[in-house]
Amino acid sequence: MGLWKFLKDYFLGFWDYETPKVMVVKNRTLGVIYRAVQFLVITYFIWYVFISQKAYQESETRPESSVYTRMTGVALLGDSVRDMVEYVRPSEGGDVISAILRQEVTHDQRQGTCPEYYMVPNANCTQDSDCIAGDVDFDGNGQKTGRCVPYYNKTFKTCEIKTWCPIEEYAAVREPPLVEAINFTVFIKNSIHFPKFKVLRGNIKKTKHDYLRRCHYQEETSPYCPVFRLGYIAEQARENFSALCETGGVIGVYINWKCDFDLDPSKCTPTYSFRRLDIRKIPYTSGYNYRFAKYYHKNGQEFRTLIKAYGIRLDIIVHGYAGRFSLIPTIINTVTAMTSVGICSIICDWIMLTFIDKNEIYSERKFDNVSKKIPQPVSTELTTTEYGSTHSDLSEGVAL
Amino acid sequence: MGLWKFLKDYFLGFWDYETPKVMVVKNRTLGVIYRAVQFLVITYFIWYVFISQKAYQESETRPESSVYTRMTGVALLGDSVRDMVEYVRPSEGGDVISAILRQEVTHDQRQGTCPEYYMVPNANCTQDSDCIAGDVDFDGNGQKTGRCVPYYNKTFKTCEIKTWCPIEEYAAVREPPLVEAINFTVFIKNSIHFPKFKVLRGNIKKTKHDYLRRCHYQEETSPYCPVFRLGYIAEQARENFSALCETGGVIGVYINWKCDFDLDPSKCTPTYSFRRLDIRKIPYTSGYNYRFAKYYHKNGQEFRTLIKAYGIRLDIIVHGYAGRFSLIPTIINTVTAMTSVGICSIICDWIMLTFIDKNEIYSERKFDNVSKKIPQPVSTELTTTEYGSTHSDLSEGVAL
Amino acid sequence: MGLWKFLKDYFLGFWDYETPKVMVVKNRTLGVIYRAVQFLVITYFIWYVFISQKAYQESETRPESSVYTRMTGVALLGDSVRDMVEYVRPSEGGDVISAILRQEVTHDQRQGTCPEYYMVPNANCTQDSDCIAGDVDFDGNGQKTGRCVPYYNKTFKTCEIKTWCPIEEYAAVREPPLVEAINFTVFIKNSIHFPKFKVLRGNIKKTKHDYLRRCHYQEETSPYCPVFRLGYIAEQARENFSALCETGGVIGVYINWKCDFDLDPSKCTPTYSFRRLDIRKIPYTSGYNYRFAKYYHKNGQEFRTLIKAYGIRLDIIVHGYAGRFSLIPTIINTVTAMTSVGICSIICDWIMLTFIDKNEIYSERKFDNVSKKIPQPVSTELTTTEYGSTHSDLSEGVAL
Repeated sequence: MGLWKFLKDYFLGFWDYETPKVMVVKNRTLGVIYRAVQFLVITYFIWYVFISQKAYQESETRPESSVYTRMTGVALLGDSVRDMVEYVRPSEGGDVISAILRQEVTHDQRQGTCPEYYMVPNANCTQDSDCIAGDVDFDGNGQKTGRCVPYYNKTFKTCEIKTWCPIEEYAAVREPPLVEAINFTVFIKNSIHFPKFKVLRGNIKKTKHDYLRRCHYQEETSPYCPVFRLGYIAEQARENFSALCETGGVIGVYINWKCDFDLDPSKCTPTYSFRRLDIRKIPYTSGYNYRFAKYYHKNGQEFRTLIKAYGIRLDIIVHGYAGRFSLIPTIINTVTAMTSVGICSIICDWIMLTFIDKNEIYSERKFDNVSKKIPQPVSTELTTTEYGSTHSDLSEGVAL
Repeated sequence: MGLWKFLKDYFLGFWDYETPKVMVVKNRTLGVIYRAVQFLVITYFIWYVFISQKAYQESETRPESSVYTRMTGVALLGDSVRDMVEYVRPSEGGDVISAILRQEVTHDQRQGTCPEYYMVPNANCTQDSDCIAGDVDFDGNGQKTGRCVPYYNKTFKTCEIKTWCPIEEYAAVREPPLVEAINFTVFIKNSIHFPKFKVLRGNIKKTKHDYLRRCHYQEETSPYCPVFRLGYIAEQARENFSALCETGGVIGVYINWKCDFDLDPSKCTPTYSFRRLDIRKIPYTSGYNYRFAKYYHKNGQEFRTLIKAYGIRLDIIVHGYAGRFSLIPTIINTVTAMTSVGICSIICDWIMLTFIDKNEIYSERKFDNVSKKIPQPVSTELTTTEYGSTHSDLSEGVAL
Repeated sequence: MGLWKFLKDYFLGFWDYETPKVMVVKNRTLGVIYRAVQFLVITYFIWYVFISQKAYQESETRPESSVYTRMTGVALLGDSVRDMVEYVRPSEGGDVISAILRQEVTHDQRQGTCPEYYMVPNANCTQDSDCIAGDVDFDGNGQKTGRCVPYYNKTFKTCEIKTWCPIEEYAAVREPPLVEAINFTVFIKNSIHFPKFKVLRGNIKKTKHDYLRRCHYQEETSPYCPVFRLGYIAEQARENFSALCETGGVIGVYINWKCDFDLDPSKCTPTYSFRRLDIRKIPYTSGYNYRFAKYYHKNGQEFRTLIKAYGIRLDIIVHGYAGRFSLIPTIINTVTAMTSVGICSIICDWIMLTFIDKNEIYSERKFDNVSKKIPQPVSTELTTTEYGSTHSDLSEGVAL
């Protein structure tokens, strides 16, 4: 066949439409099974894919978010006034904020030499030779001078060290917990942005000037007042506030945004949940505490007040999800659904051939066995004239 | 049938190849519709899936990122020099950095007793019995002592409280805004790592030592100089710098990485965008401010300087996306495309049977109706000998 | 056809089952190719999709995470004791913690006037008129007073500026590096929560009280002791600790959780990896340093100690992945696999028609060409009586 004829035949053949030949089985049982399987598949897609998973929407799961926090509250601890500047660290109001509930304060520390803590390994001694000068213990407070001195006003002796004196273990004053902190409040302002949908939302609505100064968060009555009592947060996280004052703790404050932009966009409001984040089972490691110092000069020398602070650390974590109808995912998932309906045929074919087709009526009609061997002509009274290619389903060798 | 024969037949049948029988319709109209629908589906896949969504690539959307920030600039506010150590908090140069633009300073506060602010509820009084000792107002500054005293040098009286005196509302000095801060600069160094592709990139290129000390960011001329004037940032975020000095504000600095590793990897450079993050519509809650204190000792007593700072907080947010050609997603999406082309058949079958096949020529050829009932034999001059299974499309009962 | 008849026919037709007619080719070569292609596709799905990508599981990639850090260690630098309160910033123990390894300290700065640094542009002068009063250089330390003064105790002159005096460039004392910091340790406590699976895990196991005070992290022997020597971290990040003391650096500490909840949940343990995050290639910008000040009062005036700190900043980054068997993704991917097996037919059809079917036996049997033109009747000895619709594959016009 010349190239031209080949191309011409190919071009003409390009515009043919091929459709598979189909055997229609009028078997009520099989038909019911087939439609039932189809119904199951379609129902699965409509319920799970489109309704439950909202696959007809394009979605965005990581909005851009900004958090601002501020604590309010004042209380007296003994003679000392504790306002928010005293107990809130760090000051800058970001997404991690902590309130100091209890302090162990070592006043007036100054660099010098004093006895090491007796529970530090190798600190106990009876004479100077027990203490190796220049030695620094991994767990200690400073560097040994080589002298063995009385432990402050006690009878036993420990090695003298160069450190900030007096040491914390001896001189720290354990303050009572700031129990009124249960009524302190934290104001959490959050604004999120879904760049895909170009929507900006916040967790505060426009209100009278005084509203936010006076309200507290209540899920039903005041959902737009993100001012939370520390006691409410502890309770929601199922924690005992006094226990938290003792050991400190880290509590996660989750701001959950779940927005469906096909519905009323103003229904896109956050919910709040709280959970304690530090593991409680293990002693020595649970709770939350840290040390810091306030430095000052007296008589030309530098002093510091060492503070070991126990408190609640609030980690504000923002989760956001938004979805809106979009043609592309709808088309893609609809095509996937239609394609999956093809699975019904595989199942029903198997049912048909295995269970229903006892006399092989259907399999005879469905399967046309062709082998390469050209079968012998058989004389019959059928003539083959004028049939040509319109009778391709008869064996070629049949002479009629 | 014995088990052996069954297994033998199954094994031989396993190596048969089944192909659906197909009816070729030589209808030009239908052929054109069919090819047109195919063309649409293929074009959609090539344009949207492969080119627009880059589905032939495997991608990574969350690179590991590190940010370092540093501000530079010095100005005189009245008599007081303000260098970066004065106005930048926190000092450690992480992904959140703020510059104080305006301060309300209460100098020389010391713990003691003084009159409460008159706008605090229940603070106004005429006699001692109006003030309940030990009471702490949710909105106040301290704990009531039970005495009613003149409000500083005024004629009216308020309850005396134990607090840091003098109170901020009375004694705060409102400083003028640091307007020269519009020329202060922030240097933002960012390096990201795409672990899936093992690529490390940064937003600075190797330059002369002095380049980064002198340059400012310009999108076209100096894209590798991430030194931003605060005025430029405010302008890009469409904010008025003076208004920001008044209330403070939170501005998001977005570093956007969009890298296609099939192209020149060195073309993987970041772009920067800026947007104000705190909601502006609501009074009392917009803007950005926080309080902190500087402590010192004088005459053996602890004093503090309380500062209410208004400023710009910059939240550096890094977005990264990288893609590179990968065989697996290409194969998967190609298979999905080819499978979806099957949808064309469903559509064209429907068009063919509903609109084109008026005389039911095609549906007669396409559908072979089979019912379980064995049709009556018909006498014809066809003989059935030697037909056997090669004539499975004739009714079984035809005796020829 | 009346509406009722139409609906009745449609309803009856709804319960028919259509199955494609199939031609069975008994060609051993083609059968082997067909099964081989099927085997490849199925193997790909089983290996890659189900085993490698674990597509039978639903997964969660972004657990909620909380990090707490604390450094321990003390050393003497000359005469000065440096304990953790001195070198750790910030104090609050979050997911970013830095240790100061080297300081450049400018003591006793006080607001006043003094000579500008000679390397600042336009700082050098010979007479007062060279210095423009009120001028602030972008790179300088303060505002010019308009006088030209000797540069501290040198012979040349620079412009006098109003700033914190003496300036850092002149008066800073470069302290030696804190080399013993190589043995300081950082304790990293991490707890994660997979909300989809409601599983909470931590990187510490219950141990004797003293275990965590004494142990160091070793991957094989003590994987549950997240106490890391700074030297170990530097080594793991392939960095030289002395070089880090010189320039500072940012090191990422990655806590990697990879949990398969189909296996023993207690095998869900984290691994740690370390990598230097700041780009090292570029001078002036690599390393990590920041400035801060300690303020104090002396003789009624405010002083500050300016400190330029070089150190290691540890960014704790938590990666989590968890998966568990779920019916829905298993079904979806199985359906996709089965659908993709259909691709085998397309390939094998092409092979069959192009290479194997030389005599067009198969294509004759497979393709039934139908054109709209009704072919001329041909006289044969076949009768058409009683065939009706069960013989739809013969040409309608054949008169038998």
